[in-house]
Amino acid sequence: MHKPVAIRNIPRAEQSVIEKLGSMGVATVHEAQGRVGLMKPYMRPVYDGGRIAGSAITILAQPGDNWMVHVGIELAQPGDILVVGITADCTDGYFGDLLAHSCMARGVKALIIDAGVRDTLDLKEMGFPVWSKAIHSKGTVKETLGSVNIPIVCAGAQVNPGDIIVADGDGVCVVPRQHAEEVRDQSKAREDAEVAKRERLLKGELGLDLYNMRPRLEEAGLTYLDSIDDLNK
Amino acid sequence: MHKPVAIRNIPRAEQSVIEKLGSMGVATVHEAQGRVGLMKPYMRPVYDGGRIAGSAITILAQPGDNWMVHVGIELAQPGDILVVGITADCTDGYFGDLLAHSCMARGVKALIIDAGVRDTLDLKEMGFPVWSKAIHSKGTVKETLGSVNIPIVCAGAQVNPGDIIVADGDGVCVVPRQHAEEVRDQSKAREDAEVAKRERLLKGELGLDLYNMRPRLEEAGLTYLDSIDDLNK
Amino acid sequence: MHKPVAIRNIPRAEQSVIEKLGSMGVATVHEAQGRVGLMKPYMRPVYDGGRIAGSAITILAQPGDNWMVHVGIELAQPGDILVVGITADCTDGYFGDLLAHSCMARGVKALIIDAGVRDTLDLKEMGFPVWSKAIHSKGTVKETLGSVNIPIVCAGAQVNPGDIIVADGDGVCVVPRQHAEEVRDQSKAREDAEVAKRERLLKGELGLDLYNMRPRLEEAGLTYLDSIDDLNK
Amino acid sequence: MHKPVAIRNIPRAEQSVIEKLGSMGVATVHEAQGRVGLMKPYMRPVYDGGRIAGSAITILAQPGDNWMVHVGIELAQPGDILVVGITADCTDGYFGDLLAHSCMARGVKALIIDAGVRDTLDLKEMGFPVWSKAIHSKGTVKETLGSVNIPIVCAGAQVNPGDIIVADGDGVCVVPRQHAEEVRDQSKAREDAEVAKRERLLKGELGLDLYNMRPRLEEAGLTYLDSIDDLNK
Amino acid sequence: MHKPVAIRNIPRAEQSVIEKLGSMGVATVHEAQGRVGLMKPYMRPVYDGGRIAGSAITILAQPGDNWMVHVGIELAQPGDILVVGITADCTDGYFGDLLAHSCMARGVKALIIDAGVRDTLDLKEMGFPVWSKAIHSKGTVKETLGSVNIPIVCAGAQVNPGDIIVADGDGVCVVPRQHAEEVRDQSKAREDAEVAKRERLLKGELGLDLYNMRPRLEEAGLTYLDSIDDLNK
Amino acid sequence: MHKPVAIRNIPRAEQSVIEKLGSMGVATVHEAQGRVGLMKPYMRPVYDGGRIAGSAITILAQPGDNWMVHVGIELAQPGDILVVGITADCTDGYFGDLLAHSCMARGVKALIIDAGVRDTLDLKEMGFPVWSKAIHSKGTVKETLGSVNIPIVCAGAQVNPGDIIVADGDGVCVVPRQHAEEVRDQSKAREDAEVAKRERLLKGELGLDLYNMRPRLEEAGLTYLDSIDDLNK
Repeated sequence: MHKPVAIRNIPRAEQSVIEKLGSMGVATVHEAQGRVGLMKPYMRPVYDGGRIAGSAITILAQPGDNWMVHVGIELAQPGDILVVGITADCTDGYFGDLLAHSCMARGVKALIIDAGVRDTLDLKEMGFPVWSKAIHSKGTVKETLGSVNIPIVCAGAQVNPGDIIVADGDGVCVVPRQHAEEVRDQSKAREDAEVAKRERLLKGELGLDLYNMRPRLEEAGLTYLDSIDDLNK
Repeated sequence: MHKPVAIRNIPRAEQSVIEKLGSMGVATVHEAQGRVGLMKPYMRPVYDGGRIAGSAITILAQPGDNWMVHVGIELAQPGDILVVGITADCTDGYFGDLLAHSCMARGVKALIIDAGVRDTLDLKEMGFPVWSKAIHSKGTVKETLGSVNIPIVCAGAQVNPGDIIVADGDGVCVVPRQHAEEVRDQSKAREDAEVAKRERLLKGELGLDLYNMRPRLEEAGLTYLDSIDDLNK
Repeated sequence: MHKPVAIRNIPRAEQSVIEKLGSMGVATVHEAQGRVGLMKPYMRPVYDGGRIAGSAITILAQPGDNWMVHVGIELAQPGDILVVGITADCTDGYFGDLLAHSCMARGVKALIIDAGVRDTLDLKEMGFPVWSKAIHSKGTVKETLGSVNIPIVCAGAQVNPGDIIVADGDGVCVVPRQHAEEVRDQSKAREDAEVAKRERLLKGELGLDLYNMRPRLEEAGLTYLDSIDDLNK
Repeated sequence: MHKPVAIRNIPRAEQSVIEKLGSMGVATVHEAQGRVGLMKPYMRPVYDGGRIAGSAITILAQPGDNWMVHVGIELAQPGDILVVGITADCTDGYFGDLLAHSCMARGVKALIIDAGVRDTLDLKEMGFPVWSKAIHSKGTVKETLGSVNIPIVCAGAQVNPGDIIVADGDGVCVVPRQHAEEVRDQSKAREDAEVAKRERLLKGELGLDLYNMRPRLEEAGLTYLDSIDDLNK
Repeated sequence: MHKPVAIRNIPRAEQSVIEKLGSMGVATVHEAQGRVGLMKPYMRPVYDGGRIAGSAITILAQPGDNWMVHVGIELAQPGDILVVGITADCTDGYFGDLLAHSCMARGVKALIIDAGVRDTLDLKEMGFPVWSKAIHSKGTVKETLGSVNIPIVCAGAQVNPGDIIVADGDGVCVVPRQHAEEVRDQSKAREDAEVAKRERLLKGELGLDLYNMRPRLEEAGLTYLDSIDDLNK
Repeated sequence: MHKPVAIRNIPRAEQSVIEKLGSMGVATVHEAQGRVGLMKPYMRPVYDGGRIAGSAITILAQPGDNWMVHVGIELAQPGDILVVGITADCTDGYFGDLLAHSCMARGVKALIIDAGVRDTLDLKEMGFPVWSKAIHSKGTVKETLGSVNIPIVCAGAQVNPGDIIVADGDGVCVVPRQHAEEVRDQSKAREDAEVAKRERLLKGELGLDLYNMRPRLEEAGLTYLDSIDDLNK
């Protein structure tokens, strides 16, 4: 049974781990943790806000109702990121310049919301980064409870309070807190491995050769033909 | 880090609890557990298969790859329901008549899949119920691992192995195993309460009176006017 | 300024006109009134409920909130149809078996809603016809006012209280009350004209000849070629 | 019956009212007029064109046919905004650089269209602001009549000729002409009230306290817990 | 350059080949020809019309304009299937009972259209099968030329005049005429191979064993664990 | 039957023709070749990359599998554009900074893909232009063959190897190689004709007069009324 609760204390990863994950970006982190944890591709930055990372304050809200966002801000610590899942599909504007001012005053780093936001011009000018499903002015009410800091689903991804959120122009990725250090290390290893590959590719070497794909392509049955006229011969 | 695993043993709710939940249907169960746990409305029955309930065998599969479904069938017990989440949006046809025959032979009760299925005519004739995002013939490969019986997200809902799935023409609801008995009791209470309401409504009593809404409507500011011509007076 | 109101009395078209429009169906009526008044194609019957027509009780509701539906039922007369527009996109289940029982007890003929409904099995068994955007179990609250019997937009169509709603398997069409008789006459004329056309087509006459299209096709520049090989000659 | 007409003269709000509404933006105006009048969130600016407001020249056009846009330009006065609704869903490119030049020469201020536009690079360079559903190059024909300056539905919103259109990065809002002054006053009041709130929030005061939400949250049943471990105690 | 043409004569596959392909259905044929040729999953039967196959009369039409459908009917032979692609996305109702009567009189077997149709009740009663993107009453005009029997794209699939269309409840597949016999043979071989598999699966043999998947799963790194508690050990 | 092949040599249009087509842009070229050849409007530039044109290297890939992209790069010549169609709907991230480096090293000019891409920040910084359906980080595998340089469908458009791709902020257009010179000439003629029109429109002349529409509007039945009050007279 869902009973509306607000959990005051959540575990968080170490700040240095969070920062390192943020510096590597969504595509790398997603690969490094085994190609899981991505939010749906409809989650887009409201403005080009670079790369961020922080600990998730999870908010389960009702459609057309942003009451719980206020409780989420209360429970956030500086550096945290608000992550809002809704109990049903909704594009209403849950968040605008007033809430953004409140977030900035409290040190909240960003908002990830599976719904709409508004006052986008202000958000950009203030420099408060937001990833959302929609931009819409439709106002919300404050009538029905949800919960704060319970496990939620946001844009197709499972998010537990304290998980690390990494977001950039490629989307949003959730790193489970327990795996944060391992994922950081794997991400680092992946980045390092890519340096050499990038250099070889820049020199004109083909991926076919770099990754030694030719034998497998042949085994799988790819046939090279000189011309399309050879196709039905 | 996601490492591909297949968990052999999962906890299950009592059969009598599962059956009772199934008899009450998605709308009632969803309300009774606090209006959470619904999959997205795009999940539709492939044919009108009535109401079902069972324990979830959870399957995390890759886009265009149904390999893990075979492992899921291996680990299912009679009465279980396969629940398939995909690591990215996909409408390919993961499941058709051969897999359905395998499921029926092993006692698997139904399939819930956040992707496509095919051989829908056969599924209907065999009486194997399926709720899916799409119907598409596109075949899948068996090349990349996922996992079986780990927590997954399917069509926007968190599903743990052993959770109770309730599905009917209204969609699909997930009841966490730990809450199964409580939700059954609340569902029963809700159903009982509706009997009297239904009778009063059938006699022509208005919801306004049955639920005593008039004072709250007035307080909220609803104004009754005799005619639209009074609107701008 | 939108101030929440409930208008008690609305004008209605004559019953015989409404019935005649209903007997002719959506495609004919839409053509007859100049190809306007259609709701979006996403509005689909919850079950195959034949053809209906009735006077619109218009309901403006808030996302996730079905409070105003209760007020709409209060103000409906036998033979009326509830038409619900929402102030923002929403797929929640605004309407189920209890409200359907209430509607049937009060003589309400059908529901047209730009949102979701639930208890679809009951709706079909009861024979209460519904056209909706979605089927979803998500429950709604009763917290925020809208209005009843003011002009609304439902699924892209303007609806005034008392307008005639015609609905069938092809969708939903709105006939402005002031034009009801004229549209009925035009629909009748159109139907009559189609009888002869249908017979000629059934005998194998081509539309090209029946509608005398050949000279206009030639004038517009259509070239008949014997074979695709002549195309690039 | 829809008969194709072009209405030459329409009422307009006072210029000072229009300008004031434009200066306050979509989110504020929408709230001030009772949370109605918004177009769907799929209406997006083709380029970041700031905030505009003007009187609506309404155009009802057919799918794939931009003939009526020419008539709309004829009937527009300097400062007007063209608002185009289509009789069916369409993403074709109704409007490009030639029509934009014509609009600018005649003093038309902007275009709002529930369809597609093209020559977007030119539109940006010329500084002609457009809000549309799509960007697509598909050309349109000039074969079938619609109407100009009749009531239309555009992107889910009712628009009467002479209504005030307010548009910015948050979307598009329609203010009925009759309510323009009242909405301006309410918008102004709302803006003023927000100044103090913004300051208090910037000092770190929580919305929970600013809006005195705590007693209502408690009454509604929100429970604060120290840790998620307390949840199932 | 597209110049509007109507090609009178097209090649067709042998009738016996067409019939055999139709008897095997979309999923089998699609697999047999190398997993290509499927239309998008949004193409759905208007009513459950079983399985059909026939030679494609290809029609390239303009948005909101069904003129070319009349020319297509003129050039069809008994047993042919009309396949309509549109030059832009459109859901208008291109086809209804009059055209269906004309088709049946001329022996046209079915319609596949990447747009909308109407008079769906009549289509079902007449037994004229249709696969479409949408059901909508919106009427179309006859003003702008397209072409008949040129290569087109319909719902994401390339269709040449004379290609074999196979359609059933799983969707629509296009078999290039040149490959018809080979695909028939491969489909037959595939069907035959499935008989034995189906029997073994029905006896309870697992796909894991039938397809000898266990060594490859192990090689790929799938780990079986007894319980989820072993996951983080 | 689809058999996986890679065609080494393809015909290409003359470089001067390609450049001229690129300079005129999508909207003009599409009009000039008879309003065909456009990809769907969901194909958008990842960043504002101006206008490009080049010869198509066509790649048919499987969902979630970018193996064939590597083969496509091998077979591309400087100035070519990779065009990737997928055998089923997919939004996975097929292409990122490593492949972009490889493309730039080999002289590949751009990527057009009916799926997702990632590392968008890098793509922009490197100046490698991409038009795609989605931006998503989801990684792809290299397990299943497709083909290179066979005819494909990409985002609704037929593309043959060596066809000219023109892309800009308005979308993507395919010019069949055989028609390249004719389309160039028609595009040029169209551009020239627009110069005079643009000047006249800029002087305030109406399209109604410039295109001599008034007689046809009158003939079609458009009625000018002084006021909306005259509408129901």
